[in-house]
Amino acid sequence: MSKPQFRNKSQATAQSLSLSQGRIFPPPMAKNPRDAISASEWGFVDTSFAVDADGSITVTGDRYPGLSGQTLPALLPWFRSVVGIDFSIQDAATSHYPPAVPGSKPASAFLKRTTTFLAADQISTEPAIRLRHGHGHTVSEINAVRTTGFDRVPDYVVYPADEAQVEALVQAASATDVVLMPYGGGTNVTEALRCLSHEERPIISVDMGSMDRIEWIDPVNRMAKIQAGAPGRLIQAQLAEYGYSMGHEPDSVEFSTLGGWIATNASGMKKNQYGNIEDIVLDVTVISAAGKLERSHVAPRESIGIDPKLLIIGSEGTLGIVTSAVVKLFPLPEEQRYGSVIFKTFEDGVAFMYDVAQEDRRPASVRLVDNLQFQFGQVLKPASRGAKRLKSKAEKWLITGPFGFDPEKMVAVTLVFEGTRDQVEYQERRIYQIAKRHKGFKGGAENGRRGYLLTFGIAYIRDFVLQHHILGESFETSVPWSQAEELIDRVKRRIYAAHDARKLPGRPFVSCRVTQVYDTGCCVYFYMAFYSRGVDDAIGAYHEIEAEAREEIIAAGGSISHHHGVGKLRLPFISDIMSPAMMEWRDQMKATLDPNGIFAAQSPLESHEPAAMAKIS
Amino acid sequence: MSKPQFRNKSQATAQSLSLSQGRIFPPPMAKNPRDAISASEWGFVDTSFAVDADGSITVTGDRYPGLSGQTLPALLPWFRSVVGIDFSIQDAATSHYPPAVPGSKPASAFLKRTTTFLAADQISTEPAIRLRHGHGHTVSEINAVRTTGFDRVPDYVVYPADEAQVEALVQAASATDVVLMPYGGGTNVTEALRCLSHEERPIISVDMGSMDRIEWIDPVNRMAKIQAGAPGRLIQAQLAEYGYSMGHEPDSVEFSTLGGWIATNASGMKKNQYGNIEDIVLDVTVISAAGKLERSHVAPRESIGIDPKLLIIGSEGTLGIVTSAVVKLFPLPEEQRYGSVIFKTFEDGVAFMYDVAQEDRRPASVRLVDNLQFQFGQVLKPASRGAKRLKSKAEKWLITGPFGFDPEKMVAVTLVFEGTRDQVEYQERRIYQIAKRHKGFKGGAENGRRGYLLTFGIAYIRDFVLQHHILGESFETSVPWSQAEELIDRVKRRIYAAHDARKLPGRPFVSCRVTQVYDTGCCVYFYMAFYSRGVDDAIGAYHEIEAEAREEIIAAGGSISHHHGVGKLRLPFISDIMSPAMMEWRDQMKATLDPNGIFAAQSPLESHEPAAMAKIS
Repeated sequence: MSKPQFRNKSQATAQSLSLSQGRIFPPPMAKNPRDAISASEWGFVDTSFAVDADGSITVTGDRYPGLSGQTLPALLPWFRSVVGIDFSIQDAATSHYPPAVPGSKPASAFLKRTTTFLAADQISTEPAIRLRHGHGHTVSEINAVRTTGFDRVPDYVVYPADEAQVEALVQAASATDVVLMPYGGGTNVTEALRCLSHEERPIISVDMGSMDRIEWIDPVNRMAKIQAGAPGRLIQAQLAEYGYSMGHEPDSVEFSTLGGWIATNASGMKKNQYGNIEDIVLDVTVISAAGKLERSHVAPRESIGIDPKLLIIGSEGTLGIVTSAVVKLFPLPEEQRYGSVIFKTFEDGVAFMYDVAQEDRRPASVRLVDNLQFQFGQVLKPASRGAKRLKSKAEKWLITGPFGFDPEKMVAVTLVFEGTRDQVEYQERRIYQIAKRHKGFKGGAENGRRGYLLTFGIAYIRDFVLQHHILGESFETSVPWSQAEELIDRVKRRIYAAHDARKLPGRPFVSCRVTQVYDTGCCVYFYMAFYSRGVDDAIGAYHEIEAEAREEIIAAGGSISHHHGVGKLRLPFISDIMSPAMMEWRDQMKATLDPNGIFAAQSPLESHEPAAMAKIS
Repeated sequence: MSKPQFRNKSQATAQSLSLSQGRIFPPPMAKNPRDAISASEWGFVDTSFAVDADGSITVTGDRYPGLSGQTLPALLPWFRSVVGIDFSIQDAATSHYPPAVPGSKPASAFLKRTTTFLAADQISTEPAIRLRHGHGHTVSEINAVRTTGFDRVPDYVVYPADEAQVEALVQAASATDVVLMPYGGGTNVTEALRCLSHEERPIISVDMGSMDRIEWIDPVNRMAKIQAGAPGRLIQAQLAEYGYSMGHEPDSVEFSTLGGWIATNASGMKKNQYGNIEDIVLDVTVISAAGKLERSHVAPRESIGIDPKLLIIGSEGTLGIVTSAVVKLFPLPEEQRYGSVIFKTFEDGVAFMYDVAQEDRRPASVRLVDNLQFQFGQVLKPASRGAKRLKSKAEKWLITGPFGFDPEKMVAVTLVFEGTRDQVEYQERRIYQIAKRHKGFKGGAENGRRGYLLTFGIAYIRDFVLQHHILGESFETSVPWSQAEELIDRVKRRIYAAHDARKLPGRPFVSCRVTQVYDTGCCVYFYMAFYSRGVDDAIGAYHEIEAEAREEIIAAGGSISHHHGVGKLRLPFISDIMSPAMMEWRDQMKATLDPNGIFAAQSPLESHEPAAMAKIS
């Protein structure tokens, strides 16, 4: 999880740097043995939502402040009320993990070549490992991991140790007719890693996890060269030792990798301060079918005609394997402050967010949650006591006092300010002025901090509710400001109608937050869940409803994805947003630059086969 | 030229907008008949540097405040001293404009097709018009316009009135084997428009000047859709009527067009506040060989896999014709202030610029000129009198007073601050604190304003000095901070050495400014000039020296170009910065997406023929 970042004593401030100061070459990062990652569920093995004998829920471990080690008495009753089913906590769905895993297809020509450059322990056929490399974290994938498994998973998993080995792998794949799927943190929610059952060639998952070094830090020019397999938490930790950060903090930052961020065109929660991945990445090195794409210079900005590098960001592993990137660095902020504001209605909250977007300088993070998520935040609080009771009283006062906030309508905004003390104070002053204009009440720094950090803990809940027959997942979009409220309204109504039309039990849970603001619009992040016990093909129903929601999003002027990407899941919607000539361009580029189709396992980018959705049982 | 922009009375402020407010559809823009543009020289016909009977220089017209209508007694003596030649002002080089223009190649099949969708006045074979469409503004091109002309110019110039006509032109070109060269403002300095003499097919210049409408303004989402042929001055003027700006202000903003900015990946002088063109453009519509590339949505930010749109920005007309773009809008700033700072040495100035780059919020524009350009700014001042004399005294005090600034070493930074009053004051405070740290002295707002606005007037000087046998031009690069000073030093030394080695008369003029700051580096903009009377193949010598300077730039870690682009001029250097596989990608994309090579006149992107340099007589 994200540790509060304060200026490190060892930090060389800009002003004290000599312009001729050289590069720093950090040692390999020491991995923390506590950081074991689950093979079958989200996140670290030390953290999960566990049911106590009395039916209350406890979060295991001590990793997430405010959540780990806490007992959450209000959570289960609230779940029952929102899905409209008084389900029994004893009635858990048994996990059949590990499921059966299909055997590896023979690939003797490829394997023979790899023996010349890979050691025996750099290649695996172990079923559990191959299984893990064949999926991301969509609810259907995780459900399959717990139940039926997959028709097809990678046949081999290889662990290249350096760029030369990646190059040799690509050459071997081209020569021996196998396909390569680059693997980073395995956290995607686009079914990008799913193996299509009709792919007849052997599928090789290229796990970049051994390439996780920070190769150099350039303190003067505030750049670092980092290998693509480095996960966010290690990048954060090692850069912090030198007083820097990359500024990139997606929800998955603990597990996802630099290569994955580049491949998916990722967005970070603090992008207002540091930019999204395309703003942070200065250069990429890629092994393509044609060889190594690299540049002799890392310029701050340039005009060099057609720039092949631009195709790589967002290419989802379909054009080559990113081996490293040069990224911007930012000094750790001198000051970091959290904040929160409570608004009477979601409309007030959107109007506030819109006005924040008109600001020249926005807080590092500003997120608006709707009423349901606001309630969710409340039930994730441990039993009130001591100082916390006071806070709770203040909230009650908003409701019962002269302002008459409706607990079924009120919403919250969480804020993170980062920068020099001067900058933070300037921003705070302006933001709270805007909040006042929209009749917002300050909700305190602690609620803001909690709201921000909960992001990391909440990710574990999907697996918990899945055990209790609730299918839940997120999807997101970006949309111009003027269409945001209509889009949200239409999506919520469509999901209710779709749930109703299928006579699914109880009520759907559908909630959203506005997670990013831009000059011209915002990112809207939805959660959808419903109770599925006794439903035939519940996963199929989930996908259908999600597809209906996406149709509604596009009809309301929203994009296919703000930052999750397309993968195999959202591919059918590309034709809704791109003209035929534009799709032809895209397909021609894929066909030209990867003529044998060796990257990303016969991606439907080539085949235009219908999305994987319908194929999941 | 750029008018000071203040908040317009009619401006709808963000806070007063309803989120449901609709689009505005502005009327066509009224062209100012005063804005006649020279066919053979830079800029408006009403402006030029003219020699008076007494040898002093007067700037004609009244367009550029502080310059137009002024007599500049110090300019000529200064020119003589910097080039080291006491040349006579009477000894002007006669212009032979218009030169002979080759006849049009027959293109009957193409012309026959165009009669079905173009009116007779939408196609021209007039020699002067074809000549103008066959060059940009490199010194060799302008010299050729005044002397020998070109072996090859476009055979026809067409003026499409709408997107459908562009589409029909592209189809006709594909069907009849002609090539299309999109033409915007004709201001490029990359020889992008030069026609290669070995191109055997008819060359059609597609002048986008009739497509100059702002199609709509969306005040809520702060976007506008603008046709690609709209020149900067018209975009600025019409958006200002509604209280907005695009924020994009390249040096050529009066003449260059939206389509040209996109094609060259242009940078604006106020990019710190508004971004470069890639930050401002949200969407593009392009007519490619495969048809119309367009999107149904304009999302604030998205992740949609391979995004063909990204290839268009910077593609220099080689992949298709941009017909329109959706761009961001910014409210006109409430406050605009200029400023300037004088530093003792260039090194102090660079250290100041570096520290400004560490700031979270930088002034809209901050530019450092070296001592030679500082002197240039002084000699462009009219004879001192009245209040101006006082200012001059203050400068003298810096030199003769206790601080001992050396007039041969001192440098200046010009500043433009834009935003709310609050933001401007905050920035000013911080910037002047940094300046103080580097022992800078405030040079006053008027000098800052003058320095910024001179950019537009100075562009006319190249043609004036050319008349007096001085070949002069600019070139630029971007470079990491740590290498900037070394790069500048090496380039200057290399030019001196190259000038010396060729035994050219007098001394070379070589001067630079740091025009843009980035997190990781800066843009350095050079001027180079030398006296050429009596020199055999002076233009050839100019190009050779420029090429030597570029070699030096690349060896010192600089880029091929920060914003001018590659064109035909800098193509030989691409292989110095891109790996062979990367070049192969680029060439494959061009070959695949423009299979008949109909765009940009057999660009060497395909043929890899040596640059045009050596071919110019």
